[in-house]
Amino acid sequence: MNYNIAVVRGDGIGPEVVAETIKVLEKVGQKFGHNFHFTDVPAGGAAIDAVGECLPAETVRIAKASDAVLLGAVGGPKWDNVPGDQRPERALLGLRKELGLFANLRPAMVFDQLADASPLKPEIISGGLDIVVVRELTGGIYFGEKGHKDGGDMGPAAYDVEQYAEGEVRRIAKVAFDMAMKRSRKVTSVDKSNVLESSRLWRRVVAEVSEDYPEVELDNLYVDNAAMQLVRNPRQFDVIVTSNMFGDILSDEASQITGSIGMLPSASLADGNFGMYEPVHGSAPDIAGTGQANPIATILSGAMMLRYTFGLSEEAKSIEDAVNRFLSDGHRTADLCGGAPEAVTTTQCGDLIAANI
Amino acid sequence: MNYNIAVVRGDGIGPEVVAETIKVLEKVGQKFGHNFHFTDVPAGGAAIDAVGECLPAETVRIAKASDAVLLGAVGGPKWDNVPGDQRPERALLGLRKELGLFANLRPAMVFDQLADASPLKPEIISGGLDIVVVRELTGGIYFGEKGHKDGGDMGPAAYDVEQYAEGEVRRIAKVAFDMAMKRSRKVTSVDKSNVLESSRLWRRVVAEVSEDYPEVELDNLYVDNAAMQLVRNPRQFDVIVTSNMFGDILSDEASQITGSIGMLPSASLADGNFGMYEPVHGSAPDIAGTGQANPIATILSGAMMLRYTFGLSEEAKSIEDAVNRFLSDGHRTADLCGGAPEAVTTTQCGDLIAANI
Ligand SMILES: CC(C)[C@H](C(=O)O)[C@@H](O)C(=O)O
Ligand SMILES: CC(C)[C@H](C(=O)O)[C@@H](O)C(=O)O
Repeated sequence: MNYNIAVVRGDGIGPEVVAETIKVLEKVGQKFGHNFHFTDVPAGGAAIDAVGECLPAETVRIAKASDAVLLGAVGGPKWDNVPGDQRPERALLGLRKELGLFANLRPAMVFDQLADASPLKPEIISGGLDIVVVRELTGGIYFGEKGHKDGGDMGPAAYDVEQYAEGEVRRIAKVAFDMAMKRSRKVTSVDKSNVLESSRLWRRVVAEVSEDYPEVELDNLYVDNAAMQLVRNPRQFDVIVTSNMFGDILSDEASQITGSIGMLPSASLADGNFGMYEPVHGSAPDIAGTGQANPIATILSGAMMLRYTFGLSEEAKSIEDAVNRFLSDGHRTADLCGGAPEAVTTTQCGDLIAANI
Repeated sequence: MNYNIAVVRGDGIGPEVVAETIKVLEKVGQKFGHNFHFTDVPAGGAAIDAVGECLPAETVRIAKASDAVLLGAVGGPKWDNVPGDQRPERALLGLRKELGLFANLRPAMVFDQLADASPLKPEIISGGLDIVVVRELTGGIYFGEKGHKDGGDMGPAAYDVEQYAEGEVRRIAKVAFDMAMKRSRKVTSVDKSNVLESSRLWRRVVAEVSEDYPEVELDNLYVDNAAMQLVRNPRQFDVIVTSNMFGDILSDEASQITGSIGMLPSASLADGNFGMYEPVHGSAPDIAGTGQANPIATILSGAMMLRYTFGLSEEAKSIEDAVNRFLSDGHRTADLCGGAPEAVTTTQCGDLIAANI
């Protein structure tokens, strides 16, 4: 089979981690007899430098015409003084909206071999940790009306509207419940329905969707309590479903408690099978070009692409197994061993994982 | 001197922890020669039961006429089916708005004697932890316009408006910088200015205020990053200043990393010296009446009242010292010793601390 993948290498360490991922995917292609075609498209800081805008129309066109998008990371201090609407991050928001990527899956798991890295006490994460945050990605306050108005006595004001429609909540809730059915059958929906009208709608629609999934246990938590519980007892969670804004905060908190953010992939899915895949970490401009970047989060994002967009579960598993073997063999990238001299470089890591396929 | 304190004993363990706090304050009054007058006013679930509304006008009137308000905790499952606008939590929001309590101070500190209780590894909090979250409390999405509208293709929608005016940001920023001047001279302002217009206004006004405090270092963090940093390296923080919604989430996360939420007080301040003082924990209906409640968070809230509203620093310190001595003497309430048989009861705890004054 032929698969067309649009590739945003991006900024900072983006190009380095993407190169290793392509290396691994090509090895999978050889082994299983698939053709992965990669088409580079510019977005983010690199696109600003090349063509003066963070998300060229041509990038969106090619991405839409592809089967999936692989993205490294965008942004960096170099573009801090670019006007707001052309900042590299806008490329991410633009891609999400243009491609209809409403469901963001962010697994936060502790790898047995790296359990030590968690900032939490061993007794809190012993037995493992395996959470998926399902974040709504094209609605809410990120894309609501925003602007300036008169704040009366208090002077000029600025505002942003958090808004959710029933259909938006229903489709993201379905993603979460479908995911829970393949996992431990527990969904925790997070909102702030004691204060927000949009959260009350959210909670009501999630409850409606849950009626179609009688085998899945549904819990509702307020966002402040969820932020606490993630630190206190993260093992109570399986699938967490929440809004764009709360998902931004809680998924980052969840990835941090694993202690290995350089290992965590993500998927952003549209209706159908289309998806964009990228590491949870950012562009880390400070270590770009030093060989210290850990490509595993991006490599595992490639595995998610095989599983969710291409339906190639066995191939996806071959990548996950190869990563596990890399760790069990005792290899560590700089971020995983405090920069000890025996750290493998970005390229060596990609080579070793590709060799394990 | 005479001091008039309106007292909301509230629901669940509220009345028990307030009783011990009054005991301690009366001891302070005797020792230092002050008259504290306590006037009970109903709010929350108890008010719903007594008079059918969560925040009677008379409560607001008496609170406004007092020098300060002491509050236990409100809410509980008993009132889960009360209509939204009369839920016990609405009493809190109503008191904040009616009394103009725009600045919420939530210290998150690790007591040396209780460092073990933190869910974080000892090396992460070793050397102590002492953060104050300064949360804006009468603006933002909590009090913005909210309602229902047509969500087009996606069906009926609900919305909430996050809004900040320059004057609102300026006054909370000043509270944070003033606080930092008395502490380690570092303010971290948390926003989401890469996405929200209201955050861009927030960041700009905080920067303007910071010009009046050249000795205070100002850092800006995105809220997702702040949620991560609190787990990864909380010792980097001194004063955190943020919006109502972000402050709700981050202050709860910060209190959880101390591991001793039963110990944490809070203050909600208006212009001038008026303030409302309450523990960070909730009404814990499951342990109400069992003698297991830890009154220390409320007792320390009493100390904050003495310091911030009455300007009685020495008296405040006498309470803090009495609590420290209680801990150093090896006493523990049930929450601090996993319910071990040697736990002291709520009343014993209050007696022991009062005796230490
Ligand atoms: C860069 C930023 C706009 C983005 C977001 O807030 O969604 C990022 O934090 C993320 O979570 O992917
Ligand atoms: C009860 C609720 C409305 C309240 C809030 O969100 O402010 C509480 O969580 C708090 O932080 O005091």
